[in-house]
Amino acid sequence: MDQQTATEQQVATELKRLRQGIDNIDAALVYLLAERFKYTQAVGEFKAGNRLPPADPRREAQQIERLRRLAKDADLDPDIAEKYLQFIVKEVIRHHEVIAAKLETKPGG
Amino acid sequence: MDQQTATEQQVATELKRLRQGIDNIDAALVYLLAERFKYTQAVGEFKAGNRLPPADPRREAQQIERLRRLAKDADLDPDIAEKYLQFIVKEVIRHHEVIAAKLETKPGG
Repeated sequence: MDQQTATEQQVATELKRLRQGIDNIDAALVYLLAERFKYTQAVGEFKAGNRLPPADPRREAQQIERLRRLAKDADLDPDIAEKYLQFIVKEVIRHHEVIAAKLETKPGG
Repeated sequence: MDQQTATEQQVATELKRLRQGIDNIDAALVYLLAERFKYTQAVGEFKAGNRLPPADPRREAQQIERLRRLAKDADLDPDIAEKYLQFIVKEVIRHHEVIAAKLETKPGG
Protein backbone atom coordinates (compact mmCIF):
# COMPACT_ATOMS: atom_id res chain seq x y z
CA MET A 1 0.00 0.00 0.00
CA ASP A 2 1.57 3.31 -1.04
CA GLN A 3 1.38 6.53 0.94
CA GLN A 4 -1.32 8.05 -1.31
CA THR A 5 -3.65 5.02 -0.87
CA ALA A 6 -3.18 5.01 2.90
CA THR A 7 -4.13 8.69 3.03
CA GLU A 8 -7.23 8.19 0.87
CA GLN A 9 -8.37 5.37 3.17
CA GLN A 10 -7.75 7.55 6.23
CA VAL A 11 -9.79 10.35 4.66
CA ALA A 12 -12.64 7.95 3.83
CA THR A 13 -12.59 6.44 7.34
CA GLU A 14 -12.63 9.82 9.05
CA LEU A 15 -15.42 11.14 6.79
CA LYS A 16 -17.46 8.00 7.53
CA ARG A 17 -16.98 8.48 11.29
CA LEU A 18 -18.12 12.11 11.14
CA ARG A 19 -21.12 11.21 8.97
CA GLN A 20 -22.18 8.49 11.40
CA GLY A 21 -22.27 11.11 14.16
CA ILE A 22 -24.39 13.33 11.93
CA ASP A 23 -26.74 10.45 11.09
CA ASN A 24 -27.26 9.65 14.79
CA ILE A 25 -28.05 13.28 15.60
CA ASP A 26 -30.39 13.57 12.61
CA ALA A 27 -32.31 10.47 13.74
CA ALA A 28 -32.74 11.97 17.24
CA LEU A 29 -33.85 15.26 15.67
CA VAL A 30 -36.46 13.54 13.45
CA TYR A 31 -37.95 11.68 16.44
CA LEU A 32 -38.07 14.93 18.44
CA LEU A 33 -39.61 16.78 15.46
CA ALA A 34 -42.30 14.07 15.40
CA GLU A 35 -43.13 14.86 19.05
CA ARG A 36 -42.95 18.60 18.28
CA PHE A 37 -45.56 18.23 15.55
CA LYS A 38 -47.82 16.06 17.71
CA TYR A 39 -47.95 18.99 20.18
CA THR A 40 -48.37 21.37 17.26
CA GLN A 41 -51.33 19.38 16.01
CA ALA A 42 -52.86 19.33 19.52
CA VAL A 43 -52.44 23.13 19.76
CA GLY A 44 -53.92 23.57 16.28
CA GLU A 45 -57.00 21.51 17.11
CA PHE A 46 -57.34 23.19 20.52
CA LYS A 47 -57.09 26.71 19.00
CA ALA A 48 -59.53 25.92 16.17
CA GLY A 49 -61.98 24.34 18.65
CA ASN A 50 -61.79 27.42 20.92
CA ARG A 51 -61.96 29.98 18.06
CA LEU A 52 -58.40 31.22 18.72
CA PRO A 53 -56.39 32.53 15.71
CA PRO A 54 -53.70 30.09 14.41
CA ALA A 55 -50.88 32.67 14.49
CA ASP A 56 -49.78 34.46 17.70
CA PRO A 57 -47.02 37.05 16.96
CA ARG A 58 -46.42 37.83 20.68
CA ARG A 59 -45.85 34.18 21.58
CA GLU A 60 -43.64 33.82 18.51
CA ALA A 61 -41.47 36.79 19.55
CA GLN A 62 -41.00 35.22 23.01
CA GLN A 63 -40.00 31.90 21.43
CA ILE A 64 -37.45 33.58 19.15
CA GLU A 65 -35.88 35.45 22.08
CA ARG A 66 -35.73 32.28 24.20
CA LEU A 67 -34.28 30.08 21.43
CA ARG A 68 -31.64 32.70 20.54
CA ARG A 69 -30.64 32.75 24.24
CA LEU A 70 -30.49 28.93 24.41
CA ALA A 71 -28.48 28.86 21.15
CA LYS A 72 -25.86 31.17 22.66
CA ASP A 73 -25.63 28.87 25.69
CA ALA A 74 -25.22 25.87 23.34
CA ASP A 75 -22.58 27.67 21.20
CA LEU A 76 -24.90 27.63 18.16
CA ASP A 77 -25.29 30.59 15.77
CA PRO A 78 -28.51 32.25 17.13
CA ASP A 79 -29.58 32.97 13.53
CA ILE A 80 -29.78 29.21 12.92
CA ALA A 81 -32.03 28.76 15.98
CA GLU A 82 -34.26 31.57 14.71
CA LYS A 83 -34.36 30.11 11.20
CA TYR A 84 -35.22 26.71 12.71
CA LEU A 85 -38.20 28.30 14.50
CA GLN A 86 -39.27 30.10 11.31
CA PHE A 87 -39.20 26.73 9.54
CA ILE A 88 -41.35 25.15 12.27
CA VAL A 89 -43.80 28.10 12.46
CA LYS A 90 -44.28 28.05 8.69
CA GLU A 91 -45.14 24.33 8.82
CA VAL A 92 -47.29 24.83 11.96
CA ILE A 93 -49.41 27.59 10.39
CA ARG A 94 -49.84 25.55 7.22
CA HIS A 95 -51.09 22.61 9.34
CA HIS A 96 -53.35 24.85 11.53
CA GLU A 97 -54.99 26.36 8.46
CA VAL A 98 -55.69 22.90 7.07
CA ILE A 99 -57.27 21.84 10.40
CA ALA A 100 -59.37 25.05 10.65
CA ALA A 101 -60.56 24.62 7.05
CA LYS A 102 -61.57 21.02 7.79
CA LEU A 103 -63.58 22.07 10.91
CA GLU A 104 -65.32 24.88 9.00
CA THR A 105 -66.50 22.59 6.23
CA LYS A 106 -68.01 20.04 8.65
CA PRO A 107 -71.86 19.87 8.40
CA GLY A 108 -73.29 22.02 11.23
CA GLY A 109 -69.70 22.82 12.41
CA MET B 1 -66.74 33.02 38.98
CA ASP B 2 -69.17 32.62 36.07
CA GLN B 3 -69.13 29.78 33.60
CA GLN B 4 -67.54 31.88 30.84
CA THR B 5 -64.62 32.93 33.08
CA ALA B 6 -64.03 29.34 34.23
CA THR B 7 -63.89 28.21 30.60
CA GLU B 8 -61.47 30.99 29.63
CA GLN B 9 -59.20 29.99 32.52
CA GLN B 10 -59.36 26.34 31.48
CA VAL B 11 -58.48 27.30 27.91
CA ALA B 12 -55.52 29.43 29.12
CA THR B 13 -54.29 26.63 31.44
CA GLU B 14 -54.46 23.98 28.73
CA LEU B 15 -52.76 26.22 26.16
CA LYS B 16 -49.99 26.96 28.69
CA ARG B 17 -49.50 23.23 29.34
CA LEU B 18 -49.22 22.46 25.64
CA ARG B 19 -46.82 25.35 25.07
CA GLN B 20 -44.58 24.19 27.94
CA GLY B 21 -44.28 20.83 26.19
CA ILE B 22 -43.35 22.62 22.96
CA ASP B 23 -40.78 24.80 24.76
CA ASN B 24 -39.11 21.73 26.32
CA ILE B 25 -38.89 19.99 22.94
CA ASP B 26 -37.58 23.16 21.25
CA ALA B 27 -34.83 23.48 23.87
CA ALA B 28 -33.76 19.85 23.26
CA LEU B 29 -33.83 20.49 19.50
CA VAL B 30 -31.65 23.62 19.80
CA TYR B 31 -29.04 21.76 21.88
CA LEU B 32 -29.04 18.89 19.34
CA LEU B 33 -28.79 21.37 16.45
CA ALA B 34 -25.73 22.85 18.18
CA GLU B 35 -24.10 19.37 18.16
CA ARG B 36 -25.25 18.85 14.54
CA PHE B 37 -23.49 22.04 13.47
CA LYS B 38 -20.33 21.19 15.42
CA TYR B 39 -20.11 18.01 13.30
CA THR B 40 -21.01 20.04 10.22
CA GLN B 41 -18.17 22.43 10.91
CA ALA B 42 -15.76 19.51 11.45
CA VAL B 43 -16.87 17.98 8.12
CA GLY B 44 -16.53 21.36 6.39
CA GLU B 45 -13.00 21.88 7.66
CA PHE B 46 -12.08 18.26 6.88
CA LYS B 47 -13.45 18.49 3.31
CA ALA B 48 -11.80 21.85 2.63
CA GLY B 49 -8.49 20.56 4.06
CA ASN B 50 -8.65 17.46 1.83
CA ARG B 51 -9.81 19.32 -1.30
CA LEU B 52 -13.21 17.60 -1.32
CA PRO B 53 -16.22 19.54 -2.72
CA PRO B 54 -18.58 20.97 -0.04
CA ALA B 55 -21.76 19.50 -1.62
CA ASP B 56 -22.25 15.75 -2.16
CA PRO B 57 -25.56 15.03 -3.98
CA ARG B 58 -25.26 11.22 -3.59
CA ARG B 59 -24.80 11.42 0.19
CA GLU B 60 -27.66 13.94 0.36
CA ALA B 61 -30.01 11.59 -1.54
CA GLN B 62 -29.15 8.78 0.93
CA GLN B 63 -29.86 11.11 3.88
CA ILE B 64 -33.23 12.16 2.45
CA GLU B 65 -34.27 8.54 1.90
CA ARG B 66 -33.19 7.55 5.42
CA LEU B 67 -34.85 10.51 7.15
CA ARG B 68 -38.12 9.96 5.24
CA ARG B 69 -38.04 6.33 6.43
CA LEU B 70 -37.35 7.35 10.05
CA ALA B 71 -40.13 9.98 9.82
CA LYS B 72 -42.64 7.31 8.81
CA ASP B 73 -41.57 5.18 11.78
CA ALA B 74 -41.99 8.23 14.08
CA ASP B 75 -45.42 9.10 12.58
CA LEU B 76 -44.08 12.40 11.20
CA ASP B 77 -44.98 13.75 7.73
CA PRO B 78 -41.92 12.62 5.65
CA ASP B 79 -42.06 15.95 3.75
CA ILE B 80 -41.28 17.75 7.03
CA ALA B 81 -38.22 15.52 7.60
CA GLU B 82 -37.05 16.25 4.05
CA LYS B 83 -37.64 20.00 4.47
CA TYR B 84 -35.71 19.86 7.76
CA LEU B 85 -32.74 18.32 5.92
CA GLN B 86 -32.98 20.91 3.13
CA PHE B 87 -32.85 23.61 5.81
CA ILE B 88 -29.76 22.03 7.39
CA VAL B 89 -28.01 21.40 4.03
CA LYS B 90 -28.59 25.01 2.97
CA GLU B 91 -26.98 26.25 6.21
CA VAL B 92 -24.23 23.63 5.97
CA ILE B 93 -23.22 24.62 2.42
CA ARG B 94 -23.26 28.29 3.38
CA HIS B 95 -20.89 27.51 6.31
CA HIS B 96 -18.64 25.24 4.18
CA GLU B 97 -18.25 27.92 1.51
CA VAL B 98 -17.26 30.44 4.17
CA ILE B 99 -14.64 28.01 5.58
CA ALA B 100 -13.25 27.18 2.09
CA ALA B 101 -13.01 30.89 1.24
CA LYS B 102 -11.12 31.55 4.49
CA LEU B 103 -8.62 28.71 3.79
CA GLU B 104 -8.04 29.93 0.21
CA THR B 105 -7.21 33.43 1.32
CA LYS B 106 -4.61 32.27 3.91
CA PRO B 107 -1.01 33.28 3.01
CA GLY B 108 0.64 30.25 1.39
CA GLY B 109 -2.59 28.23 1.90
